[in-house]
Amino acid sequence: MLKREYDQVCSIARTLEVLGERWTLLVIRDVFSGRRRFDQIQENLGVARNVLSTRLARLADEGILYKRAYQEHPPRYEYFLTEKGLDLWPTLISMLHWGDRHLADPEGPPMLIRHKDCGGLVDERGTCGECGGRLDARGAYTEYGPGAPAQWREAA
Amino acid sequence: MLKREYDQVCSIARTLEVLGERWTLLVIRDVFSGRRRFDQIQENLGVARNVLSTRLARLADEGILYKRAYQEHPPRYEYFLTEKGLDLWPTLISMLHWGDRHLADPEGPPMLIRHKDCGGLVDERGTCGECGGRLDARGAYTEYGPGAPAQWREAA
Repeated sequence: MLKREYDQVCSIARTLEVLGERWTLLVIRDVFSGRRRFDQIQENLGVARNVLSTRLARLADEGILYKRAYQEHPPRYEYFLTEKGLDLWPTLISMLHWGDRHLADPEGPPMLIRHKDCGGLVDERGTCGECGGRLDARGAYTEYGPGAPAQWREAA
Repeated sequence: MLKREYDQVCSIARTLEVLGERWTLLVIRDVFSGRRRFDQIQENLGVARNVLSTRLARLADEGILYKRAYQEHPPRYEYFLTEKGLDLWPTLISMLHWGDRHLADPEGPPMLIRHKDCGGLVDERGTCGECGGRLDARGAYTEYGPGAPAQWREAA
């Protein structure tokens, strides 16, 4: 757990107390992407197992993720986003778009976010560029974009 | 500078390579709030001077802030957001709202974001709740909210 290093009366600072540790937002991103099991997340991130374990426990403590056993002997869990966790979707979407705009390779975005209902591209405010609908995490899906490495497509 | 620890083809990961260091997003928040001078930011954050210095230099290197001299002997600078920096407004707004919703004290949000044109409250997507306008940083102002500490109002 972070010591409350920022210790400010500020909702951004408090958000960063919870989410600002290295790896935390990428763990949340992975769960949003459907990686629910420790080994899936660990393999995808290449993070040390003890660090991932600490991050997942904190996210469960904070009520951002909850876990459900999928195997009893030995006990193994899958992680899901709570409503509080799903509320982080606009933050992730805005970060994704900022990276797409300012840091992507010349090929373009590696991932695209689309509206389930109409297939429109979702913008940095979580709005559908096609129908104008205001979406949440449940209304969107991801697909490979022009900047996706060839091996992703081959693996798929 | 962060070593590229995440090293993923992912715009969220790349964004976090730039913004994920401790204090960085709070430095950006402060410049958004009009704190432009080293000493103002340092005093507000209580961060070590060498850390702040490193963060500001990196943000200038990344093209998120630029600096302008306001004094020549000794040289002193003010920091301003570039367009790339201003593009971080939706991310900060979404974090602010997430913190307001899930982490604020019972009194409520310490800061409110309002639309300059109509005074409406800005929601977590950067949209005006009053007129429905889609805003950017230049279209909004902040004021103390119900959770603002009494001493802020007294100091103002």
